[in-house]
Amino acid sequence: MISVLPVMGLPEVRPGDEIADLILECAQVEDGDVVVVTQKIVSKAEGRLERVVDDDDRLRLIERESVRILRRRDELLITETAHGFVCANAGVDVSNVDEGMAALLPVDADRSARHIRDAIQARTGRRVAVVVSDTFGRTWRRGLVDVALGCAGIAAVVDLRGSTDTRGRTLQATEVAVVDEVAAAAELVMGKDSSCPVAIVRGLEQRWLREGSVGDEIVRPHGEDLFR
Amino acid sequence: MISVLPVMGLPEVRPGDEIADLILECAQVEDGDVVVVTQKIVSKAEGRLERVVDDDDRLRLIERESVRILRRRDELLITETAHGFVCANAGVDVSNVDEGMAALLPVDADRSARHIRDAIQARTGRRVAVVVSDTFGRTWRRGLVDVALGCAGIAAVVDLRGSTDTRGRTLQATEVAVVDEVAAAAELVMGKDSSCPVAIVRGLEQRWLREGSVGDEIVRPHGEDLFR
Repeated sequence: MISVLPVMGLPEVRPGDEIADLILECAQVEDGDVVVVTQKIVSKAEGRLERVVDDDDRLRLIERESVRILRRRDELLITETAHGFVCANAGVDVSNVDEGMAALLPVDADRSARHIRDAIQARTGRRVAVVVSDTFGRTWRRGLVDVALGCAGIAAVVDLRGSTDTRGRTLQATEVAVVDEVAAAAELVMGKDSSCPVAIVRGLEQRWLREGSVGDEIVRPHGEDLFR
Repeated sequence: MISVLPVMGLPEVRPGDEIADLILECAQVEDGDVVVVTQKIVSKAEGRLERVVDDDDRLRLIERESVRILRRRDELLITETAHGFVCANAGVDVSNVDEGMAALLPVDADRSARHIRDAIQARTGRRVAVVVSDTFGRTWRRGLVDVALGCAGIAAVVDLRGSTDTRGRTLQATEVAVVDEVAAAAELVMGKDSSCPVAIVRGLEQRWLREGSVGDEIVRPHGEDLFR
């Protein structure tokens, strides 16, 4: 059984805040927990905020944060970021930030996750994993889902290739993006309209809790990509 | 808090089986539960199985199940099915089925979900929701995740447009595909190599538990789609 627990009561996060401290004032963690933290508060703590005066300003910021624009329709740009993420508006987001400001994606969300993980471990002695999540759209399917931008202490992708199915035959193509599924599960207790930017996912398979990286394991290299 | 409970001990599913009966022999359901059932056992119960003698046979089946082929690389075809799903090999799958056989996607997975939901309710008096899940790849991100093919008794997409963020401003573009997140959460307790084709997600927001449809709410119409 897996439990997904919302962490309630976090204060407004400001540049320079130590997210691990804020979480530990509101929740207790156990060995093997996966702490899911939304990108928005990670970006705030890391000071990834920029002033945007108007739509032109916002567009310039999106272009600066993008290495390529894949599609454009009205206000919506689908762009590729320097990290290799393909998402709306390069992740530049004006919701839940001060008026006239925009939050950018963390420079390296795997590193952000490692930092929070290490800080939690230093303060509690608990071995936890951390996932930094964000809300992305998808091709061909309406609606947004949360996915992982970065992770620490958990495999991003679990390779079940070579495992056998219930008939004893070797399974093909069963590399499961467990960190994306963890981010999605966490979102179910967060909700976009509540003030719950952190959740704890408890009870995952312990063999998944090895060092992992969204950048290395999930971001699809260009040569492998059929849709770029 | 949300709990994700694996349903263990289901027998091998055969054409004509009533999945609700098989589930209720192995698990107790409560009002408000979401029962997630993998496509594979739905397809088996509905007799969506075809003989495949060789790779040519398999390819003919994939082409028959597709309305359009979007990309092709070696053995992998990314196709659009009659339902409007874009996925690998039109969902034609030879894992966990008898040698020489392939499982096809259900004809109408929303209807499959309604049938299982109604059967559970008739037998127990419990008001549950049902999600039929399958494992899809994604553009730009490695690794597979489970998504919803059909649903009953739960909104596929929860529209938070018009809600206000923590600053009191109206949020934009916050239509969350909660059934896809539920399918992803369920997959975390299933695992591709175990014999656990059903999970129960307990504790979701009750206001999401209205009638919903993956076909109507999630499948993106061509005119709206930037990548087809």
